[in-house]
Amino acid sequence: MSKPQIGVVGMAVMGKNLALNIESRGYSVAIYNRTGSKTEKVVADHPDKNLVPSYTIEDFVNSLETPRRIILMVKAGAPTDATIKSLLPHLDKGDVLIDGGNTFFQETMRRNEELDNSGINFIGMGVSGGEKGALEGPSLMPGGQKEAYDLVEPILKKIAAKAEDGEACVTYVGPNGAGHYVKMVHNGIEYGDMELIAESYNLMRNLLGLSNDEISDVFNEWKDGELKSYLIDITADILTRKDDLGTGKPIVDVILDRAGNKGTGKWSSQSALELGVPQSLITESVYARYISAMKDERVAASQVLPNPEFDLGDVNKKELVEKIRRALYFSKIMSYAQGFEQLRVASENYDWNLNYGDMAKIWREGCIIRAQFLQKITDAYEKNPELKNLMLDDYFKKIVEEYQNDVRDIAALAIKAGVACPGFSSAITYYDQYRSAHLPANIIQAQRDYFGAHTYERTDREGIYHYEWYHEE
Amino acid sequence: MSKPQIGVVGMAVMGKNLALNIESRGYSVAIYNRTGSKTEKVVADHPDKNLVPSYTIEDFVNSLETPRRIILMVKAGAPTDATIKSLLPHLDKGDVLIDGGNTFFQETMRRNEELDNSGINFIGMGVSGGEKGALEGPSLMPGGQKEAYDLVEPILKKIAAKAEDGEACVTYVGPNGAGHYVKMVHNGIEYGDMELIAESYNLMRNLLGLSNDEISDVFNEWKDGELKSYLIDITADILTRKDDLGTGKPIVDVILDRAGNKGTGKWSSQSALELGVPQSLITESVYARYISAMKDERVAASQVLPNPEFDLGDVNKKELVEKIRRALYFSKIMSYAQGFEQLRVASENYDWNLNYGDMAKIWREGCIIRAQFLQKITDAYEKNPELKNLMLDDYFKKIVEEYQNDVRDIAALAIKAGVACPGFSSAITYYDQYRSAHLPANIIQAQRDYFGAHTYERTDREGIYHYEWYHEE
Repeated sequence: MSKPQIGVVGMAVMGKNLALNIESRGYSVAIYNRTGSKTEKVVADHPDKNLVPSYTIEDFVNSLETPRRIILMVKAGAPTDATIKSLLPHLDKGDVLIDGGNTFFQETMRRNEELDNSGINFIGMGVSGGEKGALEGPSLMPGGQKEAYDLVEPILKKIAAKAEDGEACVTYVGPNGAGHYVKMVHNGIEYGDMELIAESYNLMRNLLGLSNDEISDVFNEWKDGELKSYLIDITADILTRKDDLGTGKPIVDVILDRAGNKGTGKWSSQSALELGVPQSLITESVYARYISAMKDERVAASQVLPNPEFDLGDVNKKELVEKIRRALYFSKIMSYAQGFEQLRVASENYDWNLNYGDMAKIWREGCIIRAQFLQKITDAYEKNPELKNLMLDDYFKKIVEEYQNDVRDIAALAIKAGVACPGFSSAITYYDQYRSAHLPANIIQAQRDYFGAHTYERTDREGIYHYEWYHEE
Repeated sequence: MSKPQIGVVGMAVMGKNLALNIESRGYSVAIYNRTGSKTEKVVADHPDKNLVPSYTIEDFVNSLETPRRIILMVKAGAPTDATIKSLLPHLDKGDVLIDGGNTFFQETMRRNEELDNSGINFIGMGVSGGEKGALEGPSLMPGGQKEAYDLVEPILKKIAAKAEDGEACVTYVGPNGAGHYVKMVHNGIEYGDMELIAESYNLMRNLLGLSNDEISDVFNEWKDGELKSYLIDITADILTRKDDLGTGKPIVDVILDRAGNKGTGKWSSQSALELGVPQSLITESVYARYISAMKDERVAASQVLPNPEFDLGDVNKKELVEKIRRALYFSKIMSYAQGFEQLRVASENYDWNLNYGDMAKIWREGCIIRAQFLQKITDAYEKNPELKNLMLDDYFKKIVEEYQNDVRDIAALAIKAGVACPGFSSAITYYDQYRSAHLPANIIQAQRDYFGAHTYERTDREGIYHYEWYHEE
């Protein structure tokens, strides 16, 4: 009997599903969990599968073909370090550890370096697609030693989601923390996509007064066009569902408007701030979740702080819905423009040599932000790998040009009506900032030089200057 | 001859000015700088002053009255650690070190704890007011051991700026990193104030076509009203100044629109993200500086990405200017509401027991954000120390109610006209989010439960729920 070609540590739902996915492609998979009963249950639930359980870490490691390939599907942070520590005495040089958890990229950079010193390869791999994706085909974003990636590529290609053209949604992302970084930005973009959909729903529901079913119909139409994507698709579905606790109401009407988060959107914004990249749409989406969580304060404030005086008047609802669609697509483009700008600056900063077109490519299927639109991003970067900003690509430029007045109308209308749309307004604001040859930062520089002698640059010559503000003329 | 009552390490401009300030209040001040020539120069430049120079760290420490009081005015980060390390062997239990640098609060927390173990008191003190403030009277934000603060309070009270009512702009902020945290949020707020002024200028200059002199007149009017503040004041002044390099142009017209930053606004946003506090206005102000720095990209984009079709038409400029003033004041209130919310959550999180009214009080003079308006904040917290949000105080509620339509008009106009105003639009958006009993986060929760089984809460009963999305009805 040949030894298992790969092992998975951690039999929570993501680890179990990933192991089953790998097994289903014809591999023998070693499995291990700190608490043995979980491993026993997986084996008992899947008696016909080629899963090889171990109940000590030593047995698990020894059961594997060498060089060993081990995927860690444990909680990010200290549990990951503890797992690595327990594995280390049993590993040999050249073995490959793959962290498939939701790990902060700088932790991955640290572990990659530490393990590299012991000759152990370490891949930090973003896994997107949730439980279902893990089982049926996720989008995978592995970063680490290239030679280690080559050792696992055949397996990863088989288990990953496949795009329409048959390509597997996995590629070598880059060294050390690159994979987890790309996953983090993916999640930030996901926050943005979700916020924009929520704002569109909010306008249709509370400004136009459409019913959930009518809004579902709108999303169903949208999902056959430019906006074709998983998140639009499930939103159309969600809006048709009835409460399963027998109230007879639509489920969305009984779900509390307090959004949770697992921190990856926050990380993405914090990193953008660190790197000096404007990433306003994702950050506003993170803040929108934070404000949503302040439910009691909001309810109290709603009784004290007044609405604007506003009357929508006689409007053509169909036309407004189309404007919302355009505002959504325009804003989505701004969000991805910011996300890819962040990838570019991170790549330069951390020396990752990311291929931006490939990143969009591996997001086309399997992951939460999967969308037809990603092919356009791949095309844009394949046409011009040095593209400075997505907006400047011909396809996107044309959309942006065509839709800018619609997003202005919607964002302005929302502000007048008192319906908060932070995603839409930050999108058009970013567009206007980015295309402004002149911004009023000259005033800011003058102030900084005035109160702190921080110096300024000039429009008409090179160099650094200071004005003697305290010597009156 | 009695020994110096206090010492200052670091004779760059801030350290030198602070030493001269202290000396001017009747103290003898020991001074030391790693490079002795700097110390020599300070003494030579100020022969009549009661400054006691030392040229070794040991002599410096030994020259001081005990328990020793030593202010470090060195570069934040590694230089601060190096200075502390060189001082430590010569110090005695009960001595007080005060870090007056622009230090990240978590570094201050670490140093406070480390030194506390050796019996050395450590105060992290925010110093605001620039070079001039250091010399003539800064706003001081000291945090650390209360008993250590008591040892230095008499000196700090004398050197700090005095508010109109004669109170010194210094108080005990709280334990360990509290002082540097409050200074960080002060700086974030400063970013917001500057951004809002820049946006007002931009609208007057580029939308209304006012001249620099006309805009200066406007700011001069504003500074006698609700907006009375240092930053409005200097902006009025800045706009009248001529280039000192002989071009004959107004200085603001030759200053390049690339804003720099020293990182404190970034820290403030990163911390807000960490603590789950919506802090959109300051964050947008940080991003606005980042975009301003992308000058070459912006100039290139301005030639490719179109303006909106927009015609301001016949407007009453005077009325619009008044609307801009109201938008500015409204937005400033939102920014401070967010900043004080951040202080509240940080105080709870780090166990600092901050007194919010006192924080506004010590910002009334000396620091960059000094403004009449801060007295209103002090009043609000004195009336109600448990105030959840500044907007809910009677004074602010009335302003917000009265001005909300103006800020809506200005933000919507800016969006239609293509003049980016991220501060104004994030301010009104925050207001609308905060006063919304219902936000569309129910959609986000439904999506999260759909793709990741992240569960949701309900509007009609307690508990955590999951919907079986994949079982078709």
